[in-house]
Amino acid sequence: MTIADRWLLPDGIEEVLPPEAWKVEHMRRDVLDLYSSWGYDLVIPPHIEFLESLSTGSGSDLDLMTFKVTDQLSGRTLGLRADTTPAVARIDAHTLRKDCPVRLCYAGSVFHTRPASLTASRTPIQVGAELYGHAGPESDMEVIALMLETLALAGLCAPSMDLGHVGIFRQLIEESGISKAVEEQLFDALQRKASGEMKAILVDAGIDGDYQAMLMALPDLCGDISVLNKARKLFAKASPIILEAVDTVEAIAKRIQASYPAVSLYFDLGELRGYNYHTGVVFAAYMPNEGQAVAKGGRYDGIGASFGRARPATGFSTDLKVLLRLGNAQDTDLPSPILAPPEADPAIVRKLRSQGERVVNRLYDRPDAAQRLGCDRELKHVDGQWQVVPVTS
Amino acid sequence: MTIADRWLLPDGIEEVLPPEAWKVEHMRRDVLDLYSSWGYDLVIPPHIEFLESLSTGSGSDLDLMTFKVTDQLSGRTLGLRADTTPAVARIDAHTLRKDCPVRLCYAGSVFHTRPASLTASRTPIQVGAELYGHAGPESDMEVIALMLETLALAGLCAPSMDLGHVGIFRQLIEESGISKAVEEQLFDALQRKASGEMKAILVDAGIDGDYQAMLMALPDLCGDISVLNKARKLFAKASPIILEAVDTVEAIAKRIQASYPAVSLYFDLGELRGYNYHTGVVFAAYMPNEGQAVAKGGRYDGIGASFGRARPATGFSTDLKVLLRLGNAQDTDLPSPILAPPEADPAIVRKLRSQGERVVNRLYDRPDAAQRLGCDRELKHVDGQWQVVPVTS
Repeated sequence: MTIADRWLLPDGIEEVLPPEAWKVEHMRRDVLDLYSSWGYDLVIPPHIEFLESLSTGSGSDLDLMTFKVTDQLSGRTLGLRADTTPAVARIDAHTLRKDCPVRLCYAGSVFHTRPASLTASRTPIQVGAELYGHAGPESDMEVIALMLETLALAGLCAPSMDLGHVGIFRQLIEESGISKAVEEQLFDALQRKASGEMKAILVDAGIDGDYQAMLMALPDLCGDISVLNKARKLFAKASPIILEAVDTVEAIAKRIQASYPAVSLYFDLGELRGYNYHTGVVFAAYMPNEGQAVAKGGRYDGIGASFGRARPATGFSTDLKVLLRLGNAQDTDLPSPILAPPEADPAIVRKLRSQGERVVNRLYDRPDAAQRLGCDRELKHVDGQWQVVPVTS
Repeated sequence: MTIADRWLLPDGIEEVLPPEAWKVEHMRRDVLDLYSSWGYDLVIPPHIEFLESLSTGSGSDLDLMTFKVTDQLSGRTLGLRADTTPAVARIDAHTLRKDCPVRLCYAGSVFHTRPASLTASRTPIQVGAELYGHAGPESDMEVIALMLETLALAGLCAPSMDLGHVGIFRQLIEESGISKAVEEQLFDALQRKASGEMKAILVDAGIDGDYQAMLMALPDLCGDISVLNKARKLFAKASPIILEAVDTVEAIAKRIQASYPAVSLYFDLGELRGYNYHTGVVFAAYMPNEGQAVAKGGRYDGIGASFGRARPATGFSTDLKVLLRLGNAQDTDLPSPILAPPEADPAIVRKLRSQGERVVNRLYDRPDAAQRLGCDRELKHVDGQWQVVPVTS
């Protein structure tokens, strides 16, 4: 590698420079302070773990996105976390072991072998919150509200939000006695909304006509809130569990509309994002002209099982760098620094710094030192005392 | 891997749980605010880069500590950063390209294949600051002062500090015409303070008697400040460059003693920590009963060369987790949360949160919900309005 290209960064991996880096830091603080004010406790999970710990529950979807290395100490395979949720679930299930609701939040880089989309970063700075130990729509609503508050902090006050419920497809599969192999084919076809293919799979598998009709209806169960009543009629012959799922989606939608009227809701009961992982309500927030979700989450009650204790869980995550890129957050630029000559009174310098000023030592004696260092003021000895005065060029 | 050990973490890799995680976050903010108040701009370098970018200048020492993976996009080898300095040097040399002094700071995890010592973490949360573009002792003094202020923030106000200067050994090697191969043997022997071995190497190589004596004196040039005058006499016959190095060490020592009288200084002119990397003053801070340095740094003027522009550079780094473990920082525990029932006025809840209170939604109806969630106060409707009252059990 020549000098000329040693500074290249791999595709999809970026650095953040001044002054943007300080904006990221500022956003990180605002977001973590928000989560703390809602009672979420911060955890700092490791960036590297044994691969088995990372690829549990949620894992199978993430496995191909996970960088793997051999641990020189144990000889075992380590993975760089591609998502923070499995580690946080491990902390809830194994380390904290509480039997009341537990609220946890985090902020830190995750690593993807391949970008999630053409323009996506391979090193998002993931922030998110998880709520364990409560199964009702109240906890789904809480994390959705916190997600919307996070977007609002970034100046994204009117996102679109997709709402779905993977429990409907899951329950239809179970009731209709579809085998695992057929389920996978069906899942694949449904993701692509390939109705003809779905029909062929269902007929081939000899599935009961009522369930065929219900499964075939899923790709079309999307649109405004009227979708929910359509679903109630369609699923009248299925078990009450499916109707409960519809009720849950409706209860959450009504609360979002009441508390966040600027959010436009879109319903999609055939949406199976993270199907291997999620068990209930799933949601994602979108902004105009941005193909990928800016924030997303859902219920994933099974995740603790790999660590010895499954309990209800719901949460969301987003990427600080995306929030900053799309957002319209208030101006968080730092003040211009004050230039201090070597002979300046250290006590005065210390006091200015403690008051939130940035004071830069003048290390070199060029007459334009202040301008070059971006200082608009300087410390000068005037009338027998040290004073901050504007730079005169 | 069974459920029973899926929660195991690899040796030397740890998670940070509540309430310690918030203390780490608090320390991170205090430290970055400190650096900002001294005029240091934050950068967020990537955690993963092409291996060649990471193993420049400083690199050869770090290579064995670097986790390597294959990039699926480019087919090239990527490394996880084992130190943040090479990336920051790249940003100064290539991306910012300023010709005035540049001050940069950072905070983030680094990754080591093997722990630096038996008890060390393999994933320190490295924080540090770097000053580019100034060659005099003033800039060394500035970063040393900032390192001592960092330790003071953590409550470590009276560290011991080792001061050395790798330029002395480097210059003696150059003047005496010692070959690269002999230099390496000599370096190795000097690190172990193996005088007999050094003598044999010098005699074998046929080195001039004066230089033999000067090099043989290095292992003993350690102790209090009187070492510097001893060095001046010893090196009288060598070039003025060496005497200048001694003067630099003395100038820095005097300023530290004046500004930080609680710091005890130890001089070691035979100390070659980071010899492949450092070019001038080197320093490290120690605390009692802690074998490893808690913070360290030095001058490394060559580092930008790999990225097309070498210019003076000096800096230091430390580990937030070590600062927190050894430190005696002021109490940064968060306030106990307030429990809010579902029917609580959202405006009141929002107001309390914006005032810095932590308000937790009561999601379940156990009579002891408040205690279980760690709340000592709750929102109650009393006398026709919502009030925060102590929890009565």
